Amino acid sequence: MQVETIAQQTYDLKKELKKMAQQIDQALVKALPEEEAIPSIIHQSMRYSLFAGGKRLRPLLALAACQAVQGDQNKVMAAACALEMIHTYSLIHDDLPAMDDDDLRRGKPTNHIVYGEAMAILAGDGLLTRAFGLLAEAAFAEAKGQSAEVAQRYLQVITEIAQASGSQGMIGGQVMDMEAEEKAIDLPTMEYIHQHKTGALIKTSLRTGAILGGGSHEAIEALSAYGEYLGLAFQITDDLLDIQGDTEKLGKPVGSDEKNQKSTYPSLLGVEKAREAAEEAVQSAVEALEPFGSEAELLRQLALYLLEREN
Amino acid sequence: MQVETIAQQTYDLKKELKKMAQQIDQALVKALPEEEAIPSIIHQSMRYSLFAGGKRLRPLLALAACQAVQGDQNKVMAAACALEMIHTYSLIHDDLPAMDDDDLRRGKPTNHIVYGEAMAILAGDGLLTRAFGLLAEAAFAEAKGQSAEVAQRYLQVITEIAQASGSQGMIGGQVMDMEAEEKAIDLPTMEYIHQHKTGALIKTSLRTGAILGGGSHEAIEALSAYGEYLGLAFQITDDLLDIQGDTEKLGKPVGSDEKNQKSTYPSLLGVEKAREAAEEAVQSAVEALEPFGSEAELLRQLALYLLEREN
Repeated sequence: MQVETIAQQTYDLKKELKKMAQQIDQALVKALPEEEAIPSIIHQSMRYSLFAGGKRLRPLLALAACQAVQGDQNKVMAAACALEMIHTYSLIHDDLPAMDDDDLRRGKPTNHIVYGEAMAILAGDGLLTRAFGLLAEAAFAEAKGQSAEVAQRYLQVITEIAQASGSQGMIGGQVMDMEAEEKAIDLPTMEYIHQHKTGALIKTSLRTGAILGGGSHEAIEALSAYGEYLGLAFQITDDLLDIQGDTEKLGKPVGSDEKNQKSTYPSLLGVEKAREAAEEAVQSAVEALEPFGSEAELLRQLALYLLEREN
Repeated sequence: MQVETIAQQTYDLKKELKKMAQQIDQALVKALPEEEAIPSIIHQSMRYSLFAGGKRLRPLLALAACQAVQGDQNKVMAAACALEMIHTYSLIHDDLPAMDDDDLRRGKPTNHIVYGEAMAILAGDGLLTRAFGLLAEAAFAEAKGQSAEVAQRYLQVITEIAQASGSQGMIGGQVMDMEAEEKAIDLPTMEYIHQHKTGALIKTSLRTGAILGGGSHEAIEALSAYGEYLGLAFQITDDLLDIQGDTEKLGKPVGSDEKNQKSTYPSLLGVEKAREAAEEAVQSAVEALEPFGSEAELLRQLALYLLEREN
């Protein structure tokens, strides 16, 4: 039954996602110092990774959550850009020789391959710093002449983004991932890694859109729950793609997790159970959206789409 | 004439600085997740560098600027801690093998020597992220139930700190420093490097204290000017100490700049002219404080003290 709905609506979803991704890219172009800004080399390096073909998942989720609470998307765009900058900095640092030592990302040479290790470290630092600067600037401009509540919403969002990406969030997940390397780990440890390394920022992207969009407490919590399930579904389908996908579409060699002896959902649960877990997570995500009507259609379709994604 | 004043008051200055540094340390201890917080290893690594014997110059300047505008120091402490975290992260990353490749800092093994390169990168990222999280948390708590102006002050401070430490501030200075390595550079290039690599955050520390302390526009600008001169004086005396100091007091080998063929104020101007330039900068710093009375005595004495510092 659902299959038809998905097939029928996928075209519109893709079109909508593409349109939003373009708006995000336009905002990102303006959100960083220009390439010519002194010192030019670091701004080239920052822009290289920021425009290296990311799917813009986090900013899309922030904008879609804002849509779900019928907020003004213009007021979320700066925060959406900040989320993408934080995601990008984490990829640059994760790819470094001292970390995962990856030469390719989305089919392109990684930042340190092009600009050298030192510049890659600094470009990551620069993106992380700019993310918070952009948030504060936008908050200052938005809150000017407004009630104290507008500023408070932004301060809550900045606090949550720092938590989600900090040493007890995304960075903590990366630390645990490193500690687990080439070790057999159990399911709870793998869940900890994913919930922190990728899950926390995905969930926070939804909260960011919901909070800045002026959503009620209930709406914010519903979108949080959606974000948790979506993050889980995203991770499991990622693991499944690594086994079954096609190198060209994936931008990284198929089976690279297996080669790196990385514990994954399919390796711990088996492919069939992993696929079932992904379907359940998607179903729970969609259920979390029950309080919403058509204004949450994008988020619904996005969750269903995960099950048929190819990269 | 001035010499007597300095000698007479140095004792009190040192006592005052020590007392304030202790207060800062107490606040820093509480501002980070505990060592036991999961994942423990990154919190150990973050704390190792944060408590490795820094002089706490930036937080001291923020508190002293707040004192100068007769503000409430309790309202500046979180931001003062954030400034120290940003300074510490920059030292951890600068010391990395891909950057300056330093094994010792303040006489102790650098972070990557103790915890490895990957953890040092992540500890730096964690401190930078926590700095902004702490600022936003403090702002949220302070602004609660207050007029919109309180939140606006914080948002201005967060914006300025991000600028001062970003790719067109501190990080930009480090990039230029790397580009200039083992090259003879001219005075304007060296000034660019210092103004960005260290000057920007020192100046911003003063602005932070003045803004959050509720200072007038004129007071903020006067303290900014003081900060610029102080940063310059600090850098020149640092260069002079590198030639003349004693390894034990300095925590790094004397003459290391010369060995690294680093352009310094003494190498470009000669020792005598460099000393004169430091004295002039200190004098200008003190003059910038003319609008203030005894409430700026700490800042006055601190500037004069630079000329007789030994580490």
